[in-house]
Amino acid sequence: MIRRAIYPGSFDPITFGHIDIAERALGLFDEVVLAVARNEQKRPIFSHEERIQLVTEATRDIKGHERLKIIGFNSLLVECARRQDAIAIVRGLRAVSDFEYELQLALINRNLSPELETLFLMPKENFIYLSSSIIKELARHKADISHFVPEPVALALKNKFS
Amino acid sequence: MIRRAIYPGSFDPITFGHIDIAERALGLFDEVVLAVARNEQKRPIFSHEERIQLVTEATRDIKGHERLKIIGFNSLLVECARRQDAIAIVRGLRAVSDFEYELQLALINRNLSPELETLFLMPKENFIYLSSSIIKELARHKADISHFVPEPVALALKNKFS
Amino acid sequence: MIRRAIYPGSFDPITFGHIDIAERALGLFDEVVLAVARNEQKRPIFSHEERIQLVTEATRDIKGHERLKIIGFNSLLVECARRQDAIAIVRGLRAVSDFEYELQLALINRNLSPELETLFLMPKENFIYLSSSIIKELARHKADISHFVPEPVALALKNKFS
Amino acid sequence: MIRRAIYPGSFDPITFGHIDIAERALGLFDEVVLAVARNEQKRPIFSHEERIQLVTEATRDIKGHERLKIIGFNSLLVECARRQDAIAIVRGLRAVSDFEYELQLALINRNLSPELETLFLMPKENFIYLSSSIIKELARHKADISHFVPEPVALALKNKFS
Amino acid sequence: MIRRAIYPGSFDPITFGHIDIAERALGLFDEVVLAVARNEQKRPIFSHEERIQLVTEATRDIKGHERLKIIGFNSLLVECARRQDAIAIVRGLRAVSDFEYELQLALINRNLSPELETLFLMPKENFIYLSSSIIKELARHKADISHFVPEPVALALKNKFS
Amino acid sequence: MIRRAIYPGSFDPITFGHIDIAERALGLFDEVVLAVARNEQKRPIFSHEERIQLVTEATRDIKGHERLKIIGFNSLLVECARRQDAIAIVRGLRAVSDFEYELQLALINRNLSPELETLFLMPKENFIYLSSSIIKELARHKADISHFVPEPVALALKNKFS
Repeated sequence: MIRRAIYPGSFDPITFGHIDIAERALGLFDEVVLAVARNEQKRPIFSHEERIQLVTEATRDIKGHERLKIIGFNSLLVECARRQDAIAIVRGLRAVSDFEYELQLALINRNLSPELETLFLMPKENFIYLSSSIIKELARHKADISHFVPEPVALALKNKFS
Repeated sequence: MIRRAIYPGSFDPITFGHIDIAERALGLFDEVVLAVARNEQKRPIFSHEERIQLVTEATRDIKGHERLKIIGFNSLLVECARRQDAIAIVRGLRAVSDFEYELQLALINRNLSPELETLFLMPKENFIYLSSSIIKELARHKADISHFVPEPVALALKNKFS
Repeated sequence: MIRRAIYPGSFDPITFGHIDIAERALGLFDEVVLAVARNEQKRPIFSHEERIQLVTEATRDIKGHERLKIIGFNSLLVECARRQDAIAIVRGLRAVSDFEYELQLALINRNLSPELETLFLMPKENFIYLSSSIIKELARHKADISHFVPEPVALALKNKFS
Repeated sequence: MIRRAIYPGSFDPITFGHIDIAERALGLFDEVVLAVARNEQKRPIFSHEERIQLVTEATRDIKGHERLKIIGFNSLLVECARRQDAIAIVRGLRAVSDFEYELQLALINRNLSPELETLFLMPKENFIYLSSSIIKELARHKADISHFVPEPVALALKNKFS
Repeated sequence: MIRRAIYPGSFDPITFGHIDIAERALGLFDEVVLAVARNEQKRPIFSHEERIQLVTEATRDIKGHERLKIIGFNSLLVECARRQDAIAIVRGLRAVSDFEYELQLALINRNLSPELETLFLMPKENFIYLSSSIIKELARHKADISHFVPEPVALALKNKFS
Repeated sequence: MIRRAIYPGSFDPITFGHIDIAERALGLFDEVVLAVARNEQKRPIFSHEERIQLVTEATRDIKGHERLKIIGFNSLLVECARRQDAIAIVRGLRAVSDFEYELQLALINRNLSPELETLFLMPKENFIYLSSSIIKELARHKADISHFVPEPVALALKNKFS
């Protein structure tokens, strides 16, 4: 049996924190599906296609990348997980408010799909307070964000805000 | 003396968590006023009239419903409470961030109207992480939400997102 | 029907924060039973009898004191509540860690006695971070604690630490 | 050497909580720069100019006002701090969710500018749950907000919502 | 390659919450080592041997029990994990204060043993606020704890407190 | 005027996290008094004298050490601060539960001594979850703690637990 996990998110855009979690998930499962949610009602600054493209570039060389599959989805997460034959949802944990929201989501998803386990991984402490929204805020003001996001993302943000 | 409490909210839409709190309030007070805030700046998906209508249908058969009054309001909560002769504001408690916001509101309301007590009730644990916004998110993706909201609400959400 | 609430605690010793909550409870219920838990395994600095005595003196003149009954108990809280015919447990809410612990207790008590409601009241903001343990710490160092506890308690603490 | 701190924010509008923090900062540093962020993407209800004007009027008579400088900025905070020769960023702390966000910002700012210290001050407990957004909500409903904001701000809010 | 996780704790005593986490871990890994820490400085009410014995009885019939191994340990957790060839530490998540402590432990353990992943699982919502210490408190007062712990544990607690 | 801050704690024992905070405080104030509380009721593993000695050795070579004064105290903190002519209390912030406790302490101290400001500094993110108690736990199990405490402390812990 192949153990497959799904790692969902908006990834608007992907950061080193997300990549760190993806690598950790690859250490625990045979395969990991990184699933980019369309989430248009959240008004992402990058289009669904752009986000999928950036995730693809940013994870090209990570350890275990040959076992990482990148997809987009626009359905309920638990349905996407079912279609991908995932046994678990992987989520990164950061701060407290995050934690509450994550617990809420996990309880709802368990209600919708009891056999699908949600597990939480902790990013590297350097990334523990990193979020896509703060990255966008920094990029808007032309800050140097090379410590926080991979090069293609930094470039895309630079173009977006110029 | 009749002891009356007010239970305010946006109820966009009402969930089983809200109904659970209303029933608990009815166990503590002679009368409970469920007050639906207009809150148009929050951009509710249901109109004020629709929300009042859904609350009315959803609470028709709960225990003590003959002591439950449903109103809409578009003023400051403490003024609405005064007009209704309420001695207490009832709020449901869910998660931590919630708790902080609730405390903030309660302190402000006490400052505006010191004689009006705010009390917090805890929903059934199945509903402890339930929120209207997560319900809307699920409904948008056609999830089965019958565990979380009464039938008329489920139907109204279905129509809204079809 | 008389609506009676129980307000339990160790009260080691009673502070202005506790008294504030008792007064608020008296504003919502016909009668309030302030129930002092023996809790010897917590190693209180005052004996059960001393704590009951201090609570009695400290609440002698509060508004509604004729509807306040003070008892000691050494059983499960829900059983004590049942014997007292209480329909609700009253708890004061302070900070976050508090909140979590209170929720835990409330869920357990609901499991043991589903018909008994737990409700949370918020103390005056001056008392929102006040606790018996910090009072004892201050008294140990001969600090002026007259802003935090009634006179008989201040005196008793002074004697205890001299 | 002159020790200068920067106290940044949107100040939409300034409240007694902000003023309290500014006064505390003036007690610790030789000079304090109160820096009003343009933050147009947050859709402030007051324009950048109006907010700077209200801050100026509201702090005219506070203790140490001759060592307080008010500026607007539209760049990255750490760059503004550098231009102002500040050695520290001052932030007020309120509730938990706040705390998490503040920590996140502080860690990011430290990463961008390691020599710039972030320090947190605690407002007077009456203001511990006060926020600009709740003030706007109250003003929208014509509540008496004179306990929460200085007179010129109360007036400006009244005009804004009439 | 066999994927083995370690699930450590004091288990003083084991509750349905712990068993729930163990079952979830068995759904994600080939083998799970439930490791009972001696932790004598915490003054457990059950001896190390008793706790191991109770864990053994309580997990005898759970799903996947043939892939569950029960051990005692009295060393550093990361060393025990290494000796057991575990690739991950499994922890249950309950409330917020818990979460903070768990993050602290996980960061320390990662520092000591970077290749060992810590993952967090969420118990069934009925158990989300359950803890061994509250169970002991209930048992001390002869409460019915059959909803919270397996029968042999309930019996052992009864004997302990009679 | 000389601006002096006091940095109090049990320091049982001092960690790199404490040293980091002391260095940050030295960057903001002319002089810093590191004040070691006797705190015998907390049952420290090192005696008051040993803790003062370890703090002295551990801070001998930090930047600004010539402006750092180390003292012991066994009185109320605010009185010690007054005797030292300090205008501010410095505290390090770590996690949430910490934050709540720190706020409580700060509000109490402000009540006792309104002119004394409490300010919070954030340690380096590597130390954000570090605590003396976890260090002792690690040392008890002979873990390598050289990443967390200075050499003299590591040695003293080794001796203590051998």
